[in-house]
Amino acid sequence: MPPNTLISSKDLISYRKEMACHILLFALLALASSRVMASDPSQHQDFCVLLPLDAVLVNGFVCKPPMHVTADDFFFSGLDMPGNTSNQLGSKVTQVNVNQIAGLNTLGISLARIDYAPYGLNPPHTHPRATEILTVLEGTLYVGFVTSNTNNGNLLFTKMLKKGDVFVFPEGLIHFQFNYGPTPAVAVAALSSQNPGVITIANAVFGSNPPISDAVLAKAFQVGKDTIKYLQAQFWVDNN
Amino acid sequence: MPPNTLISSKDLISYRKEMACHILLFALLALASSRVMASDPSQHQDFCVLLPLDAVLVNGFVCKPPMHVTADDFFFSGLDMPGNTSNQLGSKVTQVNVNQIAGLNTLGISLARIDYAPYGLNPPHTHPRATEILTVLEGTLYVGFVTSNTNNGNLLFTKMLKKGDVFVFPEGLIHFQFNYGPTPAVAVAALSSQNPGVITIANAVFGSNPPISDAVLAKAFQVGKDTIKYLQAQFWVDNN
Amino acid sequence: MPPNTLISSKDLISYRKEMACHILLFALLALASSRVMASDPSQHQDFCVLLPLDAVLVNGFVCKPPMHVTADDFFFSGLDMPGNTSNQLGSKVTQVNVNQIAGLNTLGISLARIDYAPYGLNPPHTHPRATEILTVLEGTLYVGFVTSNTNNGNLLFTKMLKKGDVFVFPEGLIHFQFNYGPTPAVAVAALSSQNPGVITIANAVFGSNPPISDAVLAKAFQVGKDTIKYLQAQFWVDNN
Amino acid sequence: MPPNTLISSKDLISYRKEMACHILLFALLALASSRVMASDPSQHQDFCVLLPLDAVLVNGFVCKPPMHVTADDFFFSGLDMPGNTSNQLGSKVTQVNVNQIAGLNTLGISLARIDYAPYGLNPPHTHPRATEILTVLEGTLYVGFVTSNTNNGNLLFTKMLKKGDVFVFPEGLIHFQFNYGPTPAVAVAALSSQNPGVITIANAVFGSNPPISDAVLAKAFQVGKDTIKYLQAQFWVDNN
Amino acid sequence: MPPNTLISSKDLISYRKEMACHILLFALLALASSRVMASDPSQHQDFCVLLPLDAVLVNGFVCKPPMHVTADDFFFSGLDMPGNTSNQLGSKVTQVNVNQIAGLNTLGISLARIDYAPYGLNPPHTHPRATEILTVLEGTLYVGFVTSNTNNGNLLFTKMLKKGDVFVFPEGLIHFQFNYGPTPAVAVAALSSQNPGVITIANAVFGSNPPISDAVLAKAFQVGKDTIKYLQAQFWVDNN
Amino acid sequence: MPPNTLISSKDLISYRKEMACHILLFALLALASSRVMASDPSQHQDFCVLLPLDAVLVNGFVCKPPMHVTADDFFFSGLDMPGNTSNQLGSKVTQVNVNQIAGLNTLGISLARIDYAPYGLNPPHTHPRATEILTVLEGTLYVGFVTSNTNNGNLLFTKMLKKGDVFVFPEGLIHFQFNYGPTPAVAVAALSSQNPGVITIANAVFGSNPPISDAVLAKAFQVGKDTIKYLQAQFWVDNN
Repeated sequence: MPPNTLISSKDLISYRKEMACHILLFALLALASSRVMASDPSQHQDFCVLLPLDAVLVNGFVCKPPMHVTADDFFFSGLDMPGNTSNQLGSKVTQVNVNQIAGLNTLGISLARIDYAPYGLNPPHTHPRATEILTVLEGTLYVGFVTSNTNNGNLLFTKMLKKGDVFVFPEGLIHFQFNYGPTPAVAVAALSSQNPGVITIANAVFGSNPPISDAVLAKAFQVGKDTIKYLQAQFWVDNN
Repeated sequence: MPPNTLISSKDLISYRKEMACHILLFALLALASSRVMASDPSQHQDFCVLLPLDAVLVNGFVCKPPMHVTADDFFFSGLDMPGNTSNQLGSKVTQVNVNQIAGLNTLGISLARIDYAPYGLNPPHTHPRATEILTVLEGTLYVGFVTSNTNNGNLLFTKMLKKGDVFVFPEGLIHFQFNYGPTPAVAVAALSSQNPGVITIANAVFGSNPPISDAVLAKAFQVGKDTIKYLQAQFWVDNN
Repeated sequence: MPPNTLISSKDLISYRKEMACHILLFALLALASSRVMASDPSQHQDFCVLLPLDAVLVNGFVCKPPMHVTADDFFFSGLDMPGNTSNQLGSKVTQVNVNQIAGLNTLGISLARIDYAPYGLNPPHTHPRATEILTVLEGTLYVGFVTSNTNNGNLLFTKMLKKGDVFVFPEGLIHFQFNYGPTPAVAVAALSSQNPGVITIANAVFGSNPPISDAVLAKAFQVGKDTIKYLQAQFWVDNN
Repeated sequence: MPPNTLISSKDLISYRKEMACHILLFALLALASSRVMASDPSQHQDFCVLLPLDAVLVNGFVCKPPMHVTADDFFFSGLDMPGNTSNQLGSKVTQVNVNQIAGLNTLGISLARIDYAPYGLNPPHTHPRATEILTVLEGTLYVGFVTSNTNNGNLLFTKMLKKGDVFVFPEGLIHFQFNYGPTPAVAVAALSSQNPGVITIANAVFGSNPPISDAVLAKAFQVGKDTIKYLQAQFWVDNN
Repeated sequence: MPPNTLISSKDLISYRKEMACHILLFALLALASSRVMASDPSQHQDFCVLLPLDAVLVNGFVCKPPMHVTADDFFFSGLDMPGNTSNQLGSKVTQVNVNQIAGLNTLGISLARIDYAPYGLNPPHTHPRATEILTVLEGTLYVGFVTSNTNNGNLLFTKMLKKGDVFVFPEGLIHFQFNYGPTPAVAVAALSSQNPGVITIANAVFGSNPPISDAVLAKAFQVGKDTIKYLQAQFWVDNN
Repeated sequence: MPPNTLISSKDLISYRKEMACHILLFALLALASSRVMASDPSQHQDFCVLLPLDAVLVNGFVCKPPMHVTADDFFFSGLDMPGNTSNQLGSKVTQVNVNQIAGLNTLGISLARIDYAPYGLNPPHTHPRATEILTVLEGTLYVGFVTSNTNNGNLLFTKMLKKGDVFVFPEGLIHFQFNYGPTPAVAVAALSSQNPGVITIANAVFGSNPPISDAVLAKAFQVGKDTIKYLQAQFWVDNN
């Protein structure tokens, strides 16, 4: 059985000082940081509504005391409003995940509205933690995903979608949606995570902070360092 | 180390007969059965498209050989078409899950379109295997869910939703949507399972096959057996 | 690499005030709240005994420092004592879950003893987070569960159980146990969650707080609003 | 898109022969084998009742066609019958897992009844896939478990249990129950797996088939090879 | 209760023909396909050794009958042999996953040996289903990974590694290893999946089969279609 | 809807005192304790680097604010250094898990280097939370594992491994490695958990603190109490 512990009052005082110091340091860290996001994979109470408590970050947010949970914790407004697509890509993703609806914490699902200007593109990207199922509300979209490395190479699956069509992009695979047509398009997407994450390929490879060594990228993409430097000099839009 | 097994050719012949018999029996069972549905919780290849193979039912469907997978396996058409709401409830759920999109197998997500006639109701129900996140495309909806038993009783959380509003119904809790208004309403819902399941409370309790004993229900609902019999005599609509 | 952050002492002071304020607010919330319950699905140390720390609620309880864990953290006494069945239902569930045994935190299992007076009923209910396996210690029980909506309707599976019989109620399905006989009955049930949750159907539908709109319930149950109001006026017993 | 595949009739014939051969081989293997056991961690339909189909073994059993499932698939009888404790250990475990109740497949829980003769022992063992929660029905038991290696050594937690007491043995840890008293004892245990598995330490270390090298065991247990050979010559009872 | 099914012998015969036809079709499909790969996330028996049975593909392989499992099912030889790095990238990954060791099925882990020629590169790639932990056996490596899109952009974390150093690449993030030096380097990597999958970014984006539309890629990478066509014309090496 | 809570300032003051007291108590507990270890099974952000915050222990560590995460959080140095094998067993395990690399928190994998003196033994042990895959870097090893109790007894699978060979020890099973030869041996092992845990059988059974009752062990191992006392008097080395 664990032995009892005897602690002198001197130790206690020094501990309390150290603790105060620790908390201060932590407060500084927390102050400087944006919020970390995460959810636990299974639900273990009716709900665990996100409590915006910077002082404790876990793999998934801590829970708001249940007696103070209200219907508004499960509510978001404005998904009928078009996103602003006036950027180089001509697209905008409006996310409705645990950062917008605190009640989604631990529940493993989220939504997004995607607006596409004419010829707008949601460029090749992956969701490291979610499968996406998308339905077209307005317009037409050319969509596709690429499988991982296989003996047959990286297979591309594509489909032309019109209003009312539904398409699935399996978890972790590179995919895109392109509005070929002259009219705006709108889609609603559901993702199998409270916080799916997005890795836009071009941004992550050529727009990272700091940049990836041009020696690495030149060899990886089989082009000269000049081309790499040119690509790295672009302004990489994050349409999310 | 496991010993080798010696089997006489006679055993073999009788085994093959038994096996043939076994397969025949199984074929009969399979013939008589509708398809069982399920998915595995984690993805372990790029995709595992449902193969409609009646002979082997697992917790999740078996996979189509990947070389025969096409983009159509991830596609569904017609979610822009209104469902037929001419029933007692005045509502209709159009599901897009693994039974409609074979490629959803193992991917943990699905969609549904819900149509509501004026004053139509999607009645109290649970999804035993999914959280639901719903957004209103047209009209207004009064929605709510009830928490599980607690010291404070079963708490009801409700909200009036208009176009563009989003609401979350946590996994396993009883919830409903009601179109209070004189115009039709439409919503799109995403669910955190390839096959979320639906238990319509009224149907499961009063419309089961065979019926639950009226002694049980009279005591549970604190009404007379006459009332129970009356309720059991209704025509319970499944709007899914 | 993340840049260093420079913070003025003024910011620091205002932050500390804000932080103090934040903690006070949180203390208030915590004070007002009962405890939230939950567990993580996989064990990641030998044990993670629940620490009753109101200040931090996670999806699963925080852990007691392991050196202060004792055998009593894994112990509960009194499951041989009959529960008090003198209520309208004639039944009483004595739960032994993570709220009774702190050491069950993260371990995914719990027990319950159920006592039934003669003709006592454990009324139709679901466990949103657990399968139940029950064995009869004394008496006889008529038990059943109803499947979710299918093409064949909601199928009822029932069985008459006597002493030593075992029955399984799959996760999330509506089920009940009824003591048909003139003598008391006793059962022990195990549930596949540290905190399975209970939704008693009658209570959640007709006894919620506040009540569900009678317009919703009248339409859902196909009865008049009078019947609904009558049902809502009952005293709904929670036998858990 | 994957190219179509052209296959000559010759290939087909040779394939069919190969296939027949393959099936035969597999039938032989299946014939020779006892059944493999397993379950999937999450439920993805109302139930997936074990189908005793030797020809296909998965991580969890294949499912019986749901239309042929009956209440008996969720039923077991006889847990009120004492197990036969007339062996060296004076104890007997009667298991009720997926091998006894086909309906437990995929549901993640099982039961066991344990009988102890006076001074009977359920010897040190682990369940590699389950936590155990045990309640004493009759008699008294001295129970304990040992934690994994830590800086404080392997800590032993013990408790003396009487009728109505409950104790938890965390997943994977070595534990035992001992009936110190002169009267028989009975316990019911629930385990958090449909197929928890048992590793009786003495049997696995000294009674394996074939035996572990005495050089290994002598060094591990710091005794002479004679002692090891003596131990290996014992008749190791499996009381499960 | 499910009704009995009456089937005429004529139906039976036609069913058997259909079944035979079905099996033949399936055999054709299976013949044409390479093997699908997958594993279940939790182990539910001691092991479930992969059985190379083309006829049934599940999310994870079917199991070999346990009595025919031998130590060789858990064994692989030759990880001390250098991989052939004479390709454009100057690197070679030798994988030891469930395709090389059948016994890894359901066990959630795998290994790889990576050889780097002088100035060799393991180019930017992701593992959609695994975290990687790598240790350098010989030489020095410049390694890095990029986080997903955030307010601070895609952050690059890099480190120069020498013999005996260990580095972690979190699941789903783009990462690379580069041998800056004039001597060969060797690393051993462990991955948290029996079948982690690899998506080499350059190959998936510019070398897919068929190619992604140049309109999509030109917009995504903000270069002219000529540059895209040039990139797509490269010979994209898969060093796995 | 949850009622508002009114709290008097007096309550507040007393609460704050109680809280201060609570925190002090907790600080004492935390001071006295070593750190608890754990990880969550799924990743829900790019990473969740362990923050050594003694005040809050969860099932998995709390996360460091992401803006203060650096490459060093994913780094460990010195796995090329031989472990000190001068102990009775002649072996030493150098672990590289979440306690050595904070960035491994939530990522489900770890490494270990194992050194074996000539005739050195890594004695029979289990990892309660991980499968192990091992490759030999130098020397030769005789390795084996034992299956759980079955109808065929506890089967032993063994293999003689030389440099470059790989072997798998399935999760939870008892296994060992023995250096039969006259030269040192070295292996690298990967484990499918950030904190796999180790239970050395001899230590847990004969060297626990306090010791297991000799009555229990004598009956379990079928030897006299003298032998048990002799075994318990050994100095049990933990080579981890």
